[in-house]
Amino acid sequence: MAESIDPRALFTVSYGVYILSTEWEEKKNGQIINAFMQLTGDPICVAACLHKDNYTTELLEKSRRFSLSVLEDATPLKFIGVFGFRCGRDFDKFNACSYTISESGLPVVTDYALASIEGEVLSVTDIFTHKLFIAQVRAATVLKEGKPLLYSDYHTIKKGKSPERAPSAVFNVIK
Amino acid sequence: MAESIDPRALFTVSYGVYILSTEWEEKKNGQIINAFMQLTGDPICVAACLHKDNYTTELLEKSRRFSLSVLEDATPLKFIGVFGFRCGRDFDKFNACSYTISESGLPVVTDYALASIEGEVLSVTDIFTHKLFIAQVRAATVLKEGKPLLYSDYHTIKKGKSPERAPSAVFNVIK
Repeated sequence: MAESIDPRALFTVSYGVYILSTEWEEKKNGQIINAFMQLTGDPICVAACLHKDNYTTELLEKSRRFSLSVLEDATPLKFIGVFGFRCGRDFDKFNACSYTISESGLPVVTDYALASIEGEVLSVTDIFTHKLFIAQVRAATVLKEGKPLLYSDYHTIKKGKSPERAPSAVFNVIK
Repeated sequence: MAESIDPRALFTVSYGVYILSTEWEEKKNGQIINAFMQLTGDPICVAACLHKDNYTTELLEKSRRFSLSVLEDATPLKFIGVFGFRCGRDFDKFNACSYTISESGLPVVTDYALASIEGEVLSVTDIFTHKLFIAQVRAATVLKEGKPLLYSDYHTIKKGKSPERAPSAVFNVIK
């Protein structure tokens, strides 16, 4: 195949913006992700992609379950910064947000969240720098009405930057 | 885990709308997908999820390469219908659209397409009713400027329906 890749072409792919949270042995952590999608309808399965070096990834490989908070259009950049640009190894992100504990014991970030989706990991696959988690949805709740934040709006309107380890971090080169 | 799943929560997850095309032994086919995302930045890998029974899936398992056309905001519902609701086994979809053949020999639908992304399949994973294709991007081109069509707009503004085999077809139940 010809190897001519214009990174701007990848930038036309649409995503939302989410906080994926988990807890393992009383250590809670969460991080911003955009690489999340539904795979099947019956049973409902989803896929989430996280960088191998992230603390959330480390905890999720042990806990094998997560909550996903779907962020709304009006989410302030500053709030995203707490979950996207700080490391939970030395900073308790859950001190800087509102959250609930779900029936199954998972932390669920509720600030600016339209919905929460809880998944139980079925498989973990290495994809070079990242790990792809495939999970079955075990709970899903609408938290409020509103429009989801789009990753493209976060980039273009809010002039957000990708953390270095985001799947689409390559875009920072051209933005 | 508690098993309380409100399907509307899944509907807050954002997607674009794409045509994924492939060719095997002179048989071309393409279909509408929404379940597509970038996984890694270096190398650039992507994931696409297709129903097991679809003709495109059958061809892609053999060809192991595809093109993805990113549809624009202004894509008419009728055009989406050609690729989304008809089966390529008994209807040549490529007679009903404009397309080019890429340097690597893949058909690329150009109607209403903002960009094309070509992938070479690295792995195929069974996820209940669907197959998840993980691919490395081998070519990516911007075709024109514009806004991508969002799956949510296709649903809510255009009153589109999901084909029965879409990952998110469960939403038809509640729409």
